[in-house]
Amino acid sequence: MSEKTFNELLNWRYATKKMDPAKPVAQDKVDAIIEAVRMAPTSSGTQPFELIVVTNKEVRADICKAASDQTPITDGSHLLVFAAWDNYTNERIDAVKQANLDLRGDIPLIHQYYDNLKAGYVPRDAEVNYAHAARQAYIALGFAMLAAADQGVDCTPMEGFDPAKVDEILSLKEKGLRSVVLLPLGYRDPTGDWLLPMPKVRKSVETMVSFVE
Amino acid sequence: MSEKTFNELLNWRYATKKMDPAKPVAQDKVDAIIEAVRMAPTSSGTQPFELIVVTNKEVRADICKAASDQTPITDGSHLLVFAAWDNYTNERIDAVKQANLDLRGDIPLIHQYYDNLKAGYVPRDAEVNYAHAARQAYIALGFAMLAAADQGVDCTPMEGFDPAKVDEILSLKEKGLRSVVLLPLGYRDPTGDWLLPMPKVRKSVETMVSFVE
Repeated sequence: MSEKTFNELLNWRYATKKMDPAKPVAQDKVDAIIEAVRMAPTSSGTQPFELIVVTNKEVRADICKAASDQTPITDGSHLLVFAAWDNYTNERIDAVKQANLDLRGDIPLIHQYYDNLKAGYVPRDAEVNYAHAARQAYIALGFAMLAAADQGVDCTPMEGFDPAKVDEILSLKEKGLRSVVLLPLGYRDPTGDWLLPMPKVRKSVETMVSFVE
Repeated sequence: MSEKTFNELLNWRYATKKMDPAKPVAQDKVDAIIEAVRMAPTSSGTQPFELIVVTNKEVRADICKAASDQTPITDGSHLLVFAAWDNYTNERIDAVKQANLDLRGDIPLIHQYYDNLKAGYVPRDAEVNYAHAARQAYIALGFAMLAAADQGVDCTPMEGFDPAKVDEILSLKEKGLRSVVLLPLGYRDPTGDWLLPMPKVRKSVETMVSFVE
């Protein structure tokens, strides 16, 4: 595990613009990042997204084209695609309920809780439900970026891509999924990255935080 | 700093249902959690949300009422309210651009980048822009939860509240903000929390992750 403090992780990571294609990420490190995605908390424990881990070079080249040719997708060794549920359905929520019952036993509260959830979510517009699911994926995105930093692995969060094209490349529509955000994994190329030497720009506490005391 | 491994942090944290009102969180720990929010990456570095840290008891009691009486809000010592920009505006993006210019110098690329961003974002529907800003807040929510775990501090992510009421209580509308998610901070009350003894329910890697090799 990393010997960095949490604060050092926050400062070490950055949206890597140039990755070294000669340095693939070892599987145990990828697994640790996947584990952070898997363990990330989500609304009512629904985990309403899937993670697609793309190593295939041709597929990554296709996705790269659908993402304004951002080279970390192809220079890195692994591409994480966060794909949210396109809607909440009775079947999907029932599967979450069943997993709870399997592990925690047949507690009446669990039935009631997820039945209420179905009554609240399923009738809503699919776009509202997708938007809610996508937000949950962003919690896991945050967890993944910190897990990567903890592993000394670089990553580049990317929203700048054509989701319809990525959905098509990965056949996500058929699975009831929609691509939300991309996260290539790899190692920074310190000589080729224009962003690395630049100081991090962040708002001050005074600017972005207020206190109600 | 914590001596826990990253994986231990993932397993230690849980959505605390009962906090001990006799144990307030020390300011240095709250500061470390705020720092994680401040340093969390966001789309184009916009940081399109603010954080409101509520310690005032009456205000927390009011928010608690607007959140189905979820007691961690009042039993904890600090309530973090993530409030996203209600829209992207030229002024807001110009301020981001200026912060970049101030720190990194007058690089032509910066002007071009943020001018493109304004051209893309500002004409969009306010609701689309708010939804995008809210997602960024969820990255910071993820960072905050892990920073809290690193500090040995418990927290409870909450979406179940009336955002219009919380906006009114905190006068967010006047600031062009909308409440997105709540995160009370405190310490678990092991004797009073029904959730603590229960095993964590998470999907298996086989269920939620697929590999394109």
